Amino acid sequence: MIGRRGATRGVRVARHRREGVERTRDELAVEEPLEIRVSRVTNEGRRVSEALAVTMRTPGHDFELVAGFLHGEGVVPSAEALQELTYCLGRDPEGPQRYNVVEARLAPGVVFDAEALRRNFFTSSSCGVCGKASLESVEARGCRPVESDLTLEADVLASLPERLREGQGVFARTGGLHAAGLFAADGTCSAVREDVGRHNAVDKAVGYALLHRALPAADRVLVVSGRASFEILQKAVTAGVPVVVAVGAPSSLAVDLAARFGVTLAGFARNGAFNVYTGEGRIH
Amino acid sequence: MIGRRGATRGVRVARHRREGVERTRDELAVEEPLEIRVSRVTNEGRRVSEALAVTMRTPGHDFELVAGFLHGEGVVPSAEALQELTYCLGRDPEGPQRYNVVEARLAPGVVFDAEALRRNFFTSSSCGVCGKASLESVEARGCRPVESDLTLEADVLASLPERLREGQGVFARTGGLHAAGLFAADGTCSAVREDVGRHNAVDKAVGYALLHRALPAADRVLVVSGRASFEILQKAVTAGVPVVVAVGAPSSLAVDLAARFGVTLAGFARNGAFNVYTGEGRIH
Repeated sequence: MIGRRGATRGVRVARHRREGVERTRDELAVEEPLEIRVSRVTNEGRRVSEALAVTMRTPGHDFELVAGFLHGEGVVPSAEALQELTYCLGRDPEGPQRYNVVEARLAPGVVFDAEALRRNFFTSSSCGVCGKASLESVEARGCRPVESDLTLEADVLASLPERLREGQGVFARTGGLHAAGLFAADGTCSAVREDVGRHNAVDKAVGYALLHRALPAADRVLVVSGRASFEILQKAVTAGVPVVVAVGAPSSLAVDLAARFGVTLAGFARNGAFNVYTGEGRIH
Repeated sequence: MIGRRGATRGVRVARHRREGVERTRDELAVEEPLEIRVSRVTNEGRRVSEALAVTMRTPGHDFELVAGFLHGEGVVPSAEALQELTYCLGRDPEGPQRYNVVEARLAPGVVFDAEALRRNFFTSSSCGVCGKASLESVEARGCRPVESDLTLEADVLASLPERLREGQGVFARTGGLHAAGLFAADGTCSAVREDVGRHNAVDKAVGYALLHRALPAADRVLVVSGRASFEILQKAVTAGVPVVVAVGAPSSLAVDLAARFGVTLAGFARNGAFNVYTGEGRIH
């Protein structure tokens, strides 16, 4: 389940098949912008609010998305740093943007420099531009190798993509959403989150853990419906997740990042089989 | 073919199957950072260079990627605005970042404001944050409805995903890459480009057209291996492409954007069938 509001929308469609054209209705995954605002208390005691980012997302679990995004960017290391998450209703509370602006109110004393963060999005803070420098930049953000004694049976791992799919309410209707889920070592599902953007789906899952004060998620497995890129592994490392399972292929830098930070990375997890690229010791 | 250098990398892998574990080697799609720099001539006649963005990409066709990215962001409307594309070799020309920094030298007189562009990435320039405002922001960037008299036979359209796959040299080896291709109305392939990021694959295809002075691409069909999001349709509209075919599902805002800008949008194009969401008149 993705939330009560607007995750899918009906549309007219012409289905072209070899046997002819059928005019019918279909459901689409909704994609809408979400503005993420951050407010903080200045040294002078005033509260100031500023827009940090706009992301295209599927509505639902917006607070988790914002919490997970801010955690991934290093703004909100724990739930204590967040005082409140609210929708900004704007001038027209019934207007179309009613649920498209979320403000995160940081607790007093939490440092936040929007300008530095924006610069950091765009230019590499490390000495060079290469895979090695990218890995070092993750360390420079304070990430350390994942500490966890979690182990996982191979049969349980093989079952996770199917369990992820079972938790995907919107995908079944639209065929159009990425998913990310957190699972315990026995395969029990903590949360499955969906989004048109795969990074958003992971942010929602991490945000779920943050808001439930369950970070670092050292006893959880992160399962993603698509491929495993550098960005996905970076979010996993930041959240302290020891095992990442991808239905699709990993990239070279995802494997490098997993190796460096002690994450078990499995890919091509489908039809009861999977490939292990790093950290095989956790699978038995 | 994705280029001569480093699109895949060998890796050791443990294949877990029901019948046991096989230790073997596999090929991964390479993911490496690319820094995009822009240099321009100031009013005083000096040439200044600044870093605009870092994108994680699969090496190969980097100049096309930069050209397409800058076109999509409105910096480079045509090939004439680009004086030169070069690799910046840095202090250590044999070092790991040798091919990871590309500078686009703008022709004299081309206006470029990096700060405004960065702001624009992050905060909506329109009056609100909603799907309608997102569509209006595309118009505000100067995009107009696509003008094209291209028509396409349904049989040709249905064959395009297979033709795209045939052009994917790296996917066959890694199973891990997105692709974007430009095709003529008779199904002839102009270019197929691959990348770990689907937006990068589209930027490479658009960059190919730009560097071949073939924009607006009013006589071409853009085929993408994944889903069709707002971002993909925005790039298509900016490039003047009249037909977009996605192997995966479209999002709600992709359909809205296609409708508003006169683009024919087909999705779920696989196994000889497809769904048409907008602009059915071009298909016969």
